[in-house]
Amino acid sequence: MSLTKKQLALIRAARVAHLATADRIGQPHVIPICFVFDGKNFYSPVDEKPKRVAPQKLKRIRNILENPQVSLVIDHYDEDWRKLAYLLLFGKARVLPSGVKHRNAVRLLRRKYSQYREMTIDRLPMILIRPRRIRSWGGV
Amino acid sequence: MSLTKKQLALIRAARVAHLATADRIGQPHVIPICFVFDGKNFYSPVDEKPKRVAPQKLKRIRNILENPQVSLVIDHYDEDWRKLAYLLLFGKARVLPSGVKHRNAVRLLRRKYSQYREMTIDRLPMILIRPRRIRSWGGV
Repeated sequence: MSLTKKQLALIRAARVAHLATADRIGQPHVIPICFVFDGKNFYSPVDEKPKRVAPQKLKRIRNILENPQVSLVIDHYDEDWRKLAYLLLFGKARVLPSGVKHRNAVRLLRRKYSQYREMTIDRLPMILIRPRRIRSWGGV
Repeated sequence: MSLTKKQLALIRAARVAHLATADRIGQPHVIPICFVFDGKNFYSPVDEKPKRVAPQKLKRIRNILENPQVSLVIDHYDEDWRKLAYLLLFGKARVLPSGVKHRNAVRLLRRKYSQYREMTIDRLPMILIRPRRIRSWGGV
């Protein structure tokens, strides 16, 4: 999967993406997420912003375990609708408890979001999203 | 389904929501949408911002026809993460070709978005989302 300069710029500028998952009976679920892209995969921590339940009980995690197919959208809104744009990615997600990829994602997340520097995302699961197909719309 | 004042304020302030659908094999799809809420249902037009394909061929429409279960999230991002908030709605969607509800939604959409006043959304299908369950997170 190769990305254009404009697509990479949109990804780099975005503070939030929206992650859609679905359970095994096809009920969709969507939430805003903080994320980083390492040039190949997207990573989103299960952080403590705060969450009310244990990570394993979060609906997004349960859905990914039941059905790893996800989609992720990164978009730009502007009142000048000629400037609207989005990048829609389809791929598979999995949950990393720890490991090299997890540590690297923590480092990138803490560089991008100063808020994570004081948070224990290094000890919490990380969602890895490997994009397989991409669709872009508007000025991107 | 009853909403608090804070939830209604978040809905009213939002220019964009994110709509997740899934096809019959459970592949999720998510896009940013413009919308209005009439106090009971959410409406989103299949507009011409521009779309590259006929409305009936749009993935969101095909998914809704295959599987009417959807989720819609309306969120607020702030660099002060104590102010993060989202409202997540689960419900059923259907596609209105025309009719009283369609006309009313066009009127509300043109009031909310001046951009729609010059666009032919009155002659295009409208997505109606009836929320059945709501979950809120953060300061809402």
